[in-house]
Amino acid sequence: MQPTTNPLVDDRDVELILDEVLDVTRLFRLPYFAEHDRETVAMFIGAARDLARDALYPAYRLLDLEPPQLVDGRVQVHPRLRQLYAGLTELGVIAAPRPHAVGGSQVPLSVMALACAYMMAGNASAYGYVGLTQGAAHLLEAFADDHLKSTYMTRMYAGTWTGTMALTEPQAGSSLADITTTATPTSDGHYLLRGSKIFISGGDHDLADNVVHMTLARIAGAPAGMKGVSLFCVPKRRLDGDQLVDNDVAVTGLIHKIGWRGLPSLALAYGERGDCRGWLVGEPHQGIRYMFQMMNEARIMVGLNGVATASVAYHEAVAYARVRTQGRPLTAKDPATPPVAITQHADVRRMLLRQKAIVEGALVLLVRASWYADLANHATDPGEREHAGRLLELLTPICKSFPAEKGFEANALAVQIHGGYGYSSEYLPEAWLRDQKLNSIHEGTTGIQAADLLGRRAMAGGGAGLLALAKEIEITCARAEAAGVDPRWVADLRRAVAVVSALTAELARRGLGGDVEGMLLHATDYLDLLSTVVIAWQWLELAAVAKAALAGPLPRGNASRDAGYYQAKLAAAQYWLFTELPRIDHLATLCRDGEDSYAKLDPDWL
Amino acid sequence: MQPTTNPLVDDRDVELILDEVLDVTRLFRLPYFAEHDRETVAMFIGAARDLARDALYPAYRLLDLEPPQLVDGRVQVHPRLRQLYAGLTELGVIAAPRPHAVGGSQVPLSVMALACAYMMAGNASAYGYVGLTQGAAHLLEAFADDHLKSTYMTRMYAGTWTGTMALTEPQAGSSLADITTTATPTSDGHYLLRGSKIFISGGDHDLADNVVHMTLARIAGAPAGMKGVSLFCVPKRRLDGDQLVDNDVAVTGLIHKIGWRGLPSLALAYGERGDCRGWLVGEPHQGIRYMFQMMNEARIMVGLNGVATASVAYHEAVAYARVRTQGRPLTAKDPATPPVAITQHADVRRMLLRQKAIVEGALVLLVRASWYADLANHATDPGEREHAGRLLELLTPICKSFPAEKGFEANALAVQIHGGYGYSSEYLPEAWLRDQKLNSIHEGTTGIQAADLLGRRAMAGGGAGLLALAKEIEITCARAEAAGVDPRWVADLRRAVAVVSALTAELARRGLGGDVEGMLLHATDYLDLLSTVVIAWQWLELAAVAKAALAGPLPRGNASRDAGYYQAKLAAAQYWLFTELPRIDHLATLCRDGEDSYAKLDPDWL
Repeated sequence: MQPTTNPLVDDRDVELILDEVLDVTRLFRLPYFAEHDRETVAMFIGAARDLARDALYPAYRLLDLEPPQLVDGRVQVHPRLRQLYAGLTELGVIAAPRPHAVGGSQVPLSVMALACAYMMAGNASAYGYVGLTQGAAHLLEAFADDHLKSTYMTRMYAGTWTGTMALTEPQAGSSLADITTTATPTSDGHYLLRGSKIFISGGDHDLADNVVHMTLARIAGAPAGMKGVSLFCVPKRRLDGDQLVDNDVAVTGLIHKIGWRGLPSLALAYGERGDCRGWLVGEPHQGIRYMFQMMNEARIMVGLNGVATASVAYHEAVAYARVRTQGRPLTAKDPATPPVAITQHADVRRMLLRQKAIVEGALVLLVRASWYADLANHATDPGEREHAGRLLELLTPICKSFPAEKGFEANALAVQIHGGYGYSSEYLPEAWLRDQKLNSIHEGTTGIQAADLLGRRAMAGGGAGLLALAKEIEITCARAEAAGVDPRWVADLRRAVAVVSALTAELARRGLGGDVEGMLLHATDYLDLLSTVVIAWQWLELAAVAKAALAGPLPRGNASRDAGYYQAKLAAAQYWLFTELPRIDHLATLCRDGEDSYAKLDPDWL
Repeated sequence: MQPTTNPLVDDRDVELILDEVLDVTRLFRLPYFAEHDRETVAMFIGAARDLARDALYPAYRLLDLEPPQLVDGRVQVHPRLRQLYAGLTELGVIAAPRPHAVGGSQVPLSVMALACAYMMAGNASAYGYVGLTQGAAHLLEAFADDHLKSTYMTRMYAGTWTGTMALTEPQAGSSLADITTTATPTSDGHYLLRGSKIFISGGDHDLADNVVHMTLARIAGAPAGMKGVSLFCVPKRRLDGDQLVDNDVAVTGLIHKIGWRGLPSLALAYGERGDCRGWLVGEPHQGIRYMFQMMNEARIMVGLNGVATASVAYHEAVAYARVRTQGRPLTAKDPATPPVAITQHADVRRMLLRQKAIVEGALVLLVRASWYADLANHATDPGEREHAGRLLELLTPICKSFPAEKGFEANALAVQIHGGYGYSSEYLPEAWLRDQKLNSIHEGTTGIQAADLLGRRAMAGGGAGLLALAKEIEITCARAEAAGVDPRWVADLRRAVAVVSALTAELARRGLGGDVEGMLLHATDYLDLLSTVVIAWQWLELAAVAKAALAGPLPRGNASRDAGYYQAKLAAAQYWLFTELPRIDHLATLCRDGEDSYAKLDPDWL
């Protein structure tokens, strides 16, 4: 009864996004991407997809069932990970988007996003090692001196050593201003670190010779708060001549995570023996700023993971629902007739279509955001760079939180479609549901994303981000009109943009008038509202593409696409525009009227 | 950092519901409950609460970590369960609501519901054994002959033997019409059973000498479908003189459930050796009808479990949020000040208040539904019995599914409030999240509840259930007006009733016009809509009680209640009426307009 294969991500969607939604060939005209063409991109994604399907996915449950063990103070991961990690590093994914100068292949992030979607859907934990290493190495590339780059970054981009982001401390949680790990300068150029970190993913393992912790700490005498936090490169083992010697970073605990069980999450103690050496990255007291410059990238990766985790479960649910027979149609209850596939029940199709709308809408959004990152970094026209940068900046909290929140709902629907079987660990959907839950917590909780979106990003530059967004949405509206999409759909999205603009302006006035608490009281509703509109935008775009395709000779582009493929896009677009988009009026009312039940709630009353 | 105690359910709420919302003393005037008074009720609930807090809850994680094992074809449960099961049976909970004539104590179901809420919140799995036994014994009490009653029912009500509901088969799932287990009559009065069952909770264990399976099977030659299914009493061991001998019910598999891990879920094979004897309960071919007569009761129990599972997590989240410090208020970002409790962050209070609104609103609903069951069964006035019966009939799908669906969301919020710690199994919220997921699946999925509500219950008797509901809601509205509740709140609920009435009439016309599929297309939205209104009703009732209490001298009734306690009720009422209730207009539009994206979706397109 269980499907034995899972596409992880729909191949047709990948081609559709590259060729019909975004036109990836535009990127190849930029100097940074000039060496690439449609074929090299297809090969890169194809290699990632093959690895994901042939190696990562088949090992998924194994890693979930046998999480890492802490033995004599060192972490042993599942032996199968050795093979997976080798496969990932051989693909060159760690450095792929980085410049040739540092060993990369200058692959567009939008292409990388699609490759990652397969790999994350196949095995989020296994991909985690390389994703974390990429982020840590990128920090060194951007801010470290040549010595640190040659010693650490190069080995990390090659996958010889792995990296971590060592930010969180037990007492501080999301509040990086309260970091207390200390770094004491020495006359030898390094610092001596002392302190505790927690929830450090990939913080120790036996896959590589070394782990390099990008560590936030406070130099003695630094100012309180964010402005006194510096970034250090702190290896698990430091080089002593040609030898790697222990650098006094001890594993003090292994968190028993409920998902991502192939990747250890650790509590670490720095300098218990007074001999933990770290090297300052960049300037003192700039650690938070450096981290935040990487944060958009990290948050996009979390969002992508959310999409991937919902995608693999969606495909599993579709495959299961097609073969699972149960009951009869409402109008044919004769028990003598054989039971039908559960896809014949409207409510099962509702659950599948809802998953599809969430998964595919979010996938387009995440690739689009990565595309804006490509343009923001590498477009030749400064105006285009600025425009793309503003869009990326505004969309990042949505990219991060929408797949986490609605993806969790989609993952729960995949369990539901499996019925009693879905409630057992003989089937995979329950594991993906556990995996997904992390994405609303790490790299800034949903509440933090909401406050960041409304309090900072929507307000930045006098609302420049929203103006840029409105402009992009209007391009889609015009495209949809030209393609013959139902005018009501287009009008609904245009009206939604007007709702967002008016609401944001009103909230900005409230904030500027000094009522910051009132402005941000419904930040989570504002995030929900803007996310709903942004996903509606993706679906109108997909509807335009589908309409155009259906009007022409089929199949086009990908030979495996047929009229049904495009009709399903129209169905999901309709679903989102009619079921989800109308929710924004109520959300706007909550934001505007400032419904104050929890504002005035004294927690002692509970 | 982890709270060491958890109240499971708020004691003040229990008293509030009994004394100020429902006035339990009214029941004591009915002959069936005449022996009870406020004091015996308090003692019964108190004993259940003490067992829940002192024994059930402390064993919760143990049972979750060490699920039952299948050893040599028999299930061994966690040894601690022996003590818990003994405690539960000593309380007499299995037979508590049943008549003296069968060994019961004639405890009102509304009182039982509150006692159960504590026990289920403490340990859903442990309570599961007695809950299942109660349901199975009640089937025998209602439909079996004296021989089966004296042999089986009596021992089950005493807890000497346990019971199961053996309905589901691997190929049939929710579709009971497709049951294929056969029962062949013999000349000795018993039948020989042969077939497979799956997901049989408590289907084998080593807590008691025997397990009695209330089994649906088809007598040779029976008509196809529901009308050919009979009910059998099939023990694991049958009596041979004074001896218990094996009855050929084999355990063929242990489901690895993701929650409720103290209670085994099994695959069973009947009659592999051709010697599985079963005794017909009641008349042939009436099995489904008998089961359905017990179904309301079973569904209320599932709903109560959903409330309890969300309640224990809510209380854990409140306790954690009060002591966990992190960050600073929006208007006081000075890093030199100490971090504040996370309850100071509005979004954390939002998450807590949302949980509270779901948990307490649903608890009142579930006790109210049980109260209607008490009246439907035991009121002396036939009109009152009929009225209460209609309300119970209409509300049951909401009682079953609302706590499962919104409770799951509340449970996820409890994880979220715990941040990274919530994602680890060192903390309990993740376990309750897993437990909760079952409630949308067993005893009829949410989709089935929705179709049952709209297709059958809302239509029954020309909409008699909805008329009865409107009458009850109007009593609450009048009470709220008299208590001085904001007139807008009352008007909003009255308007909601009008929305429901108009929508239901229109959908009824659609169904009567032959478009049953169109009528039921948005059954899940209809269920969501009516559930939202019904919970708003509970909150208006609570607001009326709170307003009245705040107007009088405090403390009243329970000395531990203060003004803050009642103010929190007003806050949660406001939250629900302003945040949730306005959603009904959009839901009504979906139902009425028949948004048809998934109606026309061909699953082959996906």
